[in-house]
Amino acid sequence: MNRKTLIDRIKQKRSFLCIGLDSELDKIPEHLLKYEDPVYEFNKRIIDATHDLAVAYKPNLAFYEYRGIAGLTSLKKTMQYLAGKIPELFTIADAKRGDIGNTSKQYAQAFLGDEPAFNFDAITVAPYMGEDSVSPFLSFDGKWVILLALTSNKGAFDYQFLVNRENGKRFFEEVLERSQRYGNNENMMYVVGATQAEMFEDVRKIVPDHFLLVPGVGAQGGSLEAVCKYGLNKDCGLLVNSSRGIIFASKGEDFAEAARMEALKLQQQMESILKGNNIL
Amino acid sequence: MNRKTLIDRIKQKRSFLCIGLDSELDKIPEHLLKYEDPVYEFNKRIIDATHDLAVAYKPNLAFYEYRGIAGLTSLKKTMQYLAGKIPELFTIADAKRGDIGNTSKQYAQAFLGDEPAFNFDAITVAPYMGEDSVSPFLSFDGKWVILLALTSNKGAFDYQFLVNRENGKRFFEEVLERSQRYGNNENMMYVVGATQAEMFEDVRKIVPDHFLLVPGVGAQGGSLEAVCKYGLNKDCGLLVNSSRGIIFASKGEDFAEAARMEALKLQQQMESILKGNNIL
Repeated sequence: MNRKTLIDRIKQKRSFLCIGLDSELDKIPEHLLKYEDPVYEFNKRIIDATHDLAVAYKPNLAFYEYRGIAGLTSLKKTMQYLAGKIPELFTIADAKRGDIGNTSKQYAQAFLGDEPAFNFDAITVAPYMGEDSVSPFLSFDGKWVILLALTSNKGAFDYQFLVNRENGKRFFEEVLERSQRYGNNENMMYVVGATQAEMFEDVRKIVPDHFLLVPGVGAQGGSLEAVCKYGLNKDCGLLVNSSRGIIFASKGEDFAEAARMEALKLQQQMESILKGNNIL
Repeated sequence: MNRKTLIDRIKQKRSFLCIGLDSELDKIPEHLLKYEDPVYEFNKRIIDATHDLAVAYKPNLAFYEYRGIAGLTSLKKTMQYLAGKIPELFTIADAKRGDIGNTSKQYAQAFLGDEPAFNFDAITVAPYMGEDSVSPFLSFDGKWVILLALTSNKGAFDYQFLVNRENGKRFFEEVLERSQRYGNNENMMYVVGATQAEMFEDVRKIVPDHFLLVPGVGAQGGSLEAVCKYGLNKDCGLLVNSSRGIIFASKGEDFAEAARMEALKLQQQMESILKGNNIL
């Protein structure tokens, strides 16, 4: 999906919600366990209940890989199901990959490539190994790299805020700046955690036009208002993710309705924010 | 496999060779394509031809993931085949994972867990997200995190050498130092690329006793002698990896013999280095 279509979808759906399909088998409602592929059944119902409220879905690979081949099969079927929805949904492989050039090329194929690969629109990539670890992901038309800049976890403070002696820039700022050479705002986004709301102003100084993928609203404690106050740009420029807060809103038979309620709350807040900022 | 057993194996085999099973379907000999699972057949023959010369095998996940479920099936069968060899081999998932705590926990289960997971001895992990992204991998007895410190690619120079204004330490040195809090030399190793041979002296000042996994010998141009000059410690402390230089030494029907010849050359150099340093 290209940038223009993504912006159109946000305006059309009055939402910049991304739903994280972190569908851990041990956490899904018990009554689904009777199915052959409970995780797929769970995802299907969550998608059916929420797809008019969200522009993007983001399965985190860890929650599929830990079940081995069975997990990857659930993911594959989920991707095929997502592909059938109209209007089309933006899909993100939250995989945080990154390796030397010839190896990243294969990861890119695995996630962004057509059948038999997963055919995601975007993949999250870790920056530690530098340019040649990121570039291979940028060679797919209409597909995106979402580079980790400032993450939402406690460990973000271990390295991401170290200050470069040469220029006084923090490490996450170095990632934002140097990666401008790798791609542009038509094929790169950045992960900036909602728990770092006070940092969005600094992030926007470096990447005013790029989309930002924002995890950490909900279960991790980030605030949508704070993120939007400093993070929103004229095209919206944000995809705000909620995973556990939506998909595990209820553990009962009403899980899909409960997920819809949580998604609806966020969508309504988003609509009001988009209107308040003259984006709608 | 614990540290003592690993050191015993190195002495017994007179080798600290790790063979990278980067078994890309497009690069394996044509005559294997007639099999149902050509990559597994390839790996099996490479393992049969080399397992007395190597202490470790390191499949890079990218080369399996890009074929989707079929690729993961090849990997699974390869791991089961490796598990049957005597004496046991040290297995490394070159996966470069790392995510927020609850997510890394699932990756740890995926790679280090028992059946139906892959049951590797070790996994490579990227440090960008800090402590809580690494710690979950350290909770498996006798299993290892191999943290990226200094990688073998050109992009290593983008971020890994940035100097911290507070203390004059380079970023890779910060990773080596701070990660001492995460684990110890019984459950952590570090990736240090052979292409960075001049840096091994600085690395050893911070982690004198840890094992280092060294990619980049062979196809990437690193030198075994240079690495050993500065990287070897009293227990050897190195696992030196070669992937393409061994597994793709020939594209003909003699590929397994050719792989053995390349592995043997490295093993013989290693034996001579181990003797020269009174480790044997």
